Amino acid sequence: MLAGEKSYVVQVGDSPFSSQYGQIDVHRLKRTKFGGTVKSHMGKEFRVLEPRLPDMMRKIKRAPQIITPKDAGVIASFCGLNKNDRVVEAGAGSGALTLFLAGIVKKVYSYEVREDFYKVVKRNLELCGVKNVVLKNRDVTAGISEKDVDMVVLDMGSPELAVGEARKALKPGGFLVVYSPVLEQVGRARNAMEGFNFVRTIELISRDWEIGGNRTRPRTRMLGHTGFLTFGRR
Amino acid sequence: MLAGEKSYVVQVGDSPFSSQYGQIDVHRLKRTKFGGTVKSHMGKEFRVLEPRLPDMMRKIKRAPQIITPKDAGVIASFCGLNKNDRVVEAGAGSGALTLFLAGIVKKVYSYEVREDFYKVVKRNLELCGVKNVVLKNRDVTAGISEKDVDMVVLDMGSPELAVGEARKALKPGGFLVVYSPVLEQVGRARNAMEGFNFVRTIELISRDWEIGGNRTRPRTRMLGHTGFLTFGRR
Amino acid sequence: MLAGEKSYVVQVGDSPFSSQYGQIDVHRLKRTKFGGTVKSHMGKEFRVLEPRLPDMMRKIKRAPQIITPKDAGVIASFCGLNKNDRVVEAGAGSGALTLFLAGIVKKVYSYEVREDFYKVVKRNLELCGVKNVVLKNRDVTAGISEKDVDMVVLDMGSPELAVGEARKALKPGGFLVVYSPVLEQVGRARNAMEGFNFVRTIELISRDWEIGGNRTRPRTRMLGHTGFLTFGRR
Amino acid sequence: MLAGEKSYVVQVGDSPFSSQYGQIDVHRLKRTKFGGTVKSHMGKEFRVLEPRLPDMMRKIKRAPQIITPKDAGVIASFCGLNKNDRVVEAGAGSGALTLFLAGIVKKVYSYEVREDFYKVVKRNLELCGVKNVVLKNRDVTAGISEKDVDMVVLDMGSPELAVGEARKALKPGGFLVVYSPVLEQVGRARNAMEGFNFVRTIELISRDWEIGGNRTRPRTRMLGHTGFLTFGRR
Repeated sequence: MLAGEKSYVVQVGDSPFSSQYGQIDVHRLKRTKFGGTVKSHMGKEFRVLEPRLPDMMRKIKRAPQIITPKDAGVIASFCGLNKNDRVVEAGAGSGALTLFLAGIVKKVYSYEVREDFYKVVKRNLELCGVKNVVLKNRDVTAGISEKDVDMVVLDMGSPELAVGEARKALKPGGFLVVYSPVLEQVGRARNAMEGFNFVRTIELISRDWEIGGNRTRPRTRMLGHTGFLTFGRR
Repeated sequence: MLAGEKSYVVQVGDSPFSSQYGQIDVHRLKRTKFGGTVKSHMGKEFRVLEPRLPDMMRKIKRAPQIITPKDAGVIASFCGLNKNDRVVEAGAGSGALTLFLAGIVKKVYSYEVREDFYKVVKRNLELCGVKNVVLKNRDVTAGISEKDVDMVVLDMGSPELAVGEARKALKPGGFLVVYSPVLEQVGRARNAMEGFNFVRTIELISRDWEIGGNRTRPRTRMLGHTGFLTFGRR
Repeated sequence: MLAGEKSYVVQVGDSPFSSQYGQIDVHRLKRTKFGGTVKSHMGKEFRVLEPRLPDMMRKIKRAPQIITPKDAGVIASFCGLNKNDRVVEAGAGSGALTLFLAGIVKKVYSYEVREDFYKVVKRNLELCGVKNVVLKNRDVTAGISEKDVDMVVLDMGSPELAVGEARKALKPGGFLVVYSPVLEQVGRARNAMEGFNFVRTIELISRDWEIGGNRTRPRTRMLGHTGFLTFGRR
Repeated sequence: MLAGEKSYVVQVGDSPFSSQYGQIDVHRLKRTKFGGTVKSHMGKEFRVLEPRLPDMMRKIKRAPQIITPKDAGVIASFCGLNKNDRVVEAGAGSGALTLFLAGIVKKVYSYEVREDFYKVVKRNLELCGVKNVVLKNRDVTAGISEKDVDMVVLDMGSPELAVGEARKALKPGGFLVVYSPVLEQVGRARNAMEGFNFVRTIELISRDWEIGGNRTRPRTRMLGHTGFLTFGRR
């Protein structure tokens, strides 16, 4: 729902919804079609919209650091992910990348060794109504059951320990992607990736701009670093 | 097909295939399963792989500058694109973004006013066997026929002229994305986007790294700029 | 003075000096040679050091935004500033660039139209004991009295209004440098610089790194923007 | 000398000077004052200018990679270098940084172990008429003779081997600067710098801009990397 420049993600069942602009009866909200409007008890009009992934991302619970949208996007585009793909992910973390991948590919097999994180991801997937993710509370270094997958993406402290399993799971030509915040991880992963083709490590820097009003300039505050992305093909 | 660190995209029907590693009979190639190998007349072994989008991208014809993978990826992730979405694109250019979007969403409606570019995109879509793109040799500023689409992406010299049509085509909460190489375009587009919510302009800088061998460092050569991306929601 | 990882700039005359590590008698401090040590009443040892510019920079009063060291450094190196040079600066702001230039060149002529800023600069120059700066509380667009200077650097809201005066003040081959936070200023300055040679606009991005301890990575926080630097030669 | 958008550095003694705009008699050139003009035999007018460091930099011979102006500038500004300073440099390389430092500080002591590089630097210093550099064809790791210097800057393959000598040469509060193209060098240098204060590693990224003409944008080509700069204070 949108009111002014504020947006709210409402889970119908929450009762009652209340905000700085007043309360809304969720039963009435439920009957409102997407695109329609509903008024709060203070008379403020709310636009009712179908939530999209960027909306849900603000609602989901976050356990560890998530892979940011800029990095998630490049994983999709560098690998050419599409709706026929089956992919493996480890670790799931908070499920942010899981949700993005699930929207694109046919099936996501997601490994998360930590039980607390596993529960967070499970809850987030349910919250978003995602059906095509097989979530496992298992250590990916102990084995990947899937075969012939199109991509394996690793976001874990010691990615080098999972590279062998990834290799076995990938179809020929499939992509291995390693996300690593620090260069020591990149180095160890790259050593383990001996034999992969077209190995490449990049980092993506995103800059926000202020535009117009005689003030066109990059914003002063900037996120200096998220992680390095290493790609290779079996 | 892969031989050494070289890869080849072969359109079966090309006859015969020849490379620095010798010739291959395409009939034998046709009978080889993905993942299998085939030998050239020089005895060099080629691995036969199912081509993915990044492979096809090297094969397609390029008319104007394409939107690079890093920018295409962020369009997908910032908008949370998924397999249920219907999106509009203008102009199609060489069809690089079209192909990426087609792999993700349900339907792409693609406008390209220049007939020469239109023909290039048409040929590239056929080459890649893409079925879910409706390609039109039409000027998007003259009107977008589609309604309730999830995203409109504009890559054209005067995006501001198409913002009004984009607004009408978008469902509430849907995303408008403007790709512009120069800041003057960004400024004009942002002025036209008055009334859109959460308007934001970013640029993405990609850095390639050399890793390991006591030479860990960013590469000397770097692409300094592709384009600015402006996002807003109806 | 240095104690642990903390450093203190002490103006002798301040009496008494006190810090989290205890008080120090300034008379004893005065008698201590640079490089020697002095103890606080709590027994903590302080190393007495001759202050350098980066130390003084933390002590000076700041009125408006200062030109950062990275940008000041590039002004010096791109223009090849040296101890024989005479340079003009406008506006002086807080005097940060003034102090750096004064350490390098023979003479700095510094214009500052705002009286409040002028007073801040005057105080900062006195604090640092700088003798080779001629500071003027005057509007640079009303005229630059100096002739045959080696560089003019402009840091002001409408640099284009001072370009003509800068041209007259510069010796042939001398450098005009314009520092501008926003691109609209850059555009206006560049238009006014018609006829200058080798005109070039750059921006410098500085990234801090965490090194070693298995955590080698760019810092998360980063200053996204300070200003654009435009150089041209008469 | 300047003709059109071209500039020429002429060593008087070269005889005759010739360019695409025709020949110039060097005796007449010698008699022309800086700022005056001289005509070639083709009638093209040349402006005669006093060469500055950036001009000489294009004339000097280059043996190894030089420290670029952006990095040299930041060395000066982060250390607050000034005309009273005595500094040590190793290795001299081609003398690019040497020339910049010599213009600013009182005395530069420059170590270069390789005889071929030493000869290049010697020639470049003579060409530029620099008098305040003591150039030594010696290995800096074998000992720095100078004491109480204000800065030591190391640009060498194994900077860690010279850190101990640098520490002995520096006055308390003096700066050690290490320039290293690769991160492994940075790591080794930082380990050796145990005990230095305010240790900090940065990299500087410089971006060139195209301005105006409805084409305001960063240039497509960009230098992705030069080196990392590590600063610490004794």
